[in-house]
Amino acid sequence: MPVTVVGSIAFDSVKTPFGERTRMLGGAATHFALAASFFDNVRIVGPVGDDFGEAELEVLRRRGVDVSDVEHVAGGETFFWSGEYGWDLGSRTTLETRLGVFADFEPKLSVGARESDVLFLANIQPDLQRAVRAQCTGARFAALDSMNLWIDIARDSLVQTIATVDCLVLNDAELRQLTGKPGLLAAAREALSWGPPGPSTIIAKQGEYGAAMITADSYFSLPAYPLETVVDPTGAGDTFAGGFIGYVAAAGAEAIDEELLRAAMAYGTALASFNVEEFGTERVARLSGDEIAARVRELERVTHFSNAPIELRG
Amino acid sequence: MPVTVVGSIAFDSVKTPFGERTRMLGGAATHFALAASFFDNVRIVGPVGDDFGEAELEVLRRRGVDVSDVEHVAGGETFFWSGEYGWDLGSRTTLETRLGVFADFEPKLSVGARESDVLFLANIQPDLQRAVRAQCTGARFAALDSMNLWIDIARDSLVQTIATVDCLVLNDAELRQLTGKPGLLAAAREALSWGPPGPSTIIAKQGEYGAAMITADSYFSLPAYPLETVVDPTGAGDTFAGGFIGYVAAAGAEAIDEELLRAAMAYGTALASFNVEEFGTERVARLSGDEIAARVRELERVTHFSNAPIELRG
Repeated sequence: MPVTVVGSIAFDSVKTPFGERTRMLGGAATHFALAASFFDNVRIVGPVGDDFGEAELEVLRRRGVDVSDVEHVAGGETFFWSGEYGWDLGSRTTLETRLGVFADFEPKLSVGARESDVLFLANIQPDLQRAVRAQCTGARFAALDSMNLWIDIARDSLVQTIATVDCLVLNDAELRQLTGKPGLLAAAREALSWGPPGPSTIIAKQGEYGAAMITADSYFSLPAYPLETVVDPTGAGDTFAGGFIGYVAAAGAEAIDEELLRAAMAYGTALASFNVEEFGTERVARLSGDEIAARVRELERVTHFSNAPIELRG
Repeated sequence: MPVTVVGSIAFDSVKTPFGERTRMLGGAATHFALAASFFDNVRIVGPVGDDFGEAELEVLRRRGVDVSDVEHVAGGETFFWSGEYGWDLGSRTTLETRLGVFADFEPKLSVGARESDVLFLANIQPDLQRAVRAQCTGARFAALDSMNLWIDIARDSLVQTIATVDCLVLNDAELRQLTGKPGLLAAAREALSWGPPGPSTIIAKQGEYGAAMITADSYFSLPAYPLETVVDPTGAGDTFAGGFIGYVAAAGAEAIDEELLRAAMAYGTALASFNVEEFGTERVARLSGDEIAARVRELERVTHFSNAPIELRG
């Protein structure tokens, strides 16, 4: 099923203990689209400015991403973010954010985008996410990501928007903040109750620890893929979402069940692991399907145990 | 194989968002011993003061723990710790630590303790841990835990001590601090290199996210058991270690291989999950073997996924 992603297309300047890059291609929608492109047709929607050129579009096109809905705003500047990570990459500081063309972004979806079966609302202002969701009346699977900023300043709108999607993908700390529930299960249950129709699946991203998936009657937890080196975590969550949603899209709406969603988590996890091994989109842009498949198989190995019951005393 | 644990036997005063308790039975060796008692014979070694009475010993005895090596120091006060946890239990502040009889603790192991096949050195000063390890010449499996305090003030001694055990159990942040390596795999490899003989297994405890196990040629990651309510995390790591080491002890030294250690991780994880559901030792003290077994089975369910390979593009 074709996938449409709406969100930021950006330039990122990033400094980590392993080096730095200035004005790399980045943005949530970019990372998502590249990851999802391994699974199905992907259409990316978002504004860019005069500083965004053919070289950047070509990174997306080479992965087969449909860039015809990338809106060029004449005279504008592309969204820009710069940040710096601490020694173990566990914390990051935003140095600068320039909204540029994103400040006045009003998504106008093409017919093709509106007719996508699968929709991912990357992290943008929740009113805009809801407006996009309303345009995509035929979407059979819709998911969204958000961030602490919107929980702080637009929580009511975000809660309303979550009620319109099938799947919420959020960092676990943000899920706790959003729901006011310190426990992960209780926090997920709270978000599952926001409807009708409301989401049926909550995914709590846990950074280097992996991710957990909670539905009304199931729980699944998957660790991150073990890596020798992490160079730049930027975009890991969106890359995870792209792999996850892409796998769901490729399987088709009828096939969506717990088992499928669990496998999708593994593909998302594998994709994210490649993303963080180099700066920006560098690694995923030259990734192969075989490499992804190998890491999914390895994820099976590093999470499997056999319960050998023994006699317990008491 | 009988297990000996050497470490703190304490009174804890704990405040969490869910309530508070004053002067509960606690201490690393206590939590470890109660957990390990479900698997094999356990002997606990540590000093207590005049304030430690029959009621406290009885909690251990009821679980079959051999308390004959608990050393009563006349005129002394039992180790006391008090602390408070934040709203999501992710952070804690130590309010007071009184070493009491622990200040002058010099472990003198009985013949029975020295002859234990399995030894757990709970978190105490690393010189003392090494002295105990040297007394237990016949131990076929020895493990230790430590903490940031010793990394700060006695790192060289701790590194020496780690070289004398088979298994290092440490919080992941402390493993990074100890080795100076921000990546988990690199940090574990560094610790695996400390010998001869040096440890063959590194377990990185990850709190609410579970634990990872690293050997020279394998990696295993297991999430924490999903809980509705966490009331008091105190002692979770020691309870995990007790379940893990207890399972290894019950299986016997000949049986120790990757598969066994993975199953042991699951039992440790199950034990820890009960520990945090109530204050102090309250829950584990009245736990049943059937309850433990049920959570291990559930852990299999919440971690299992089937890789359904699909055609990937690229």
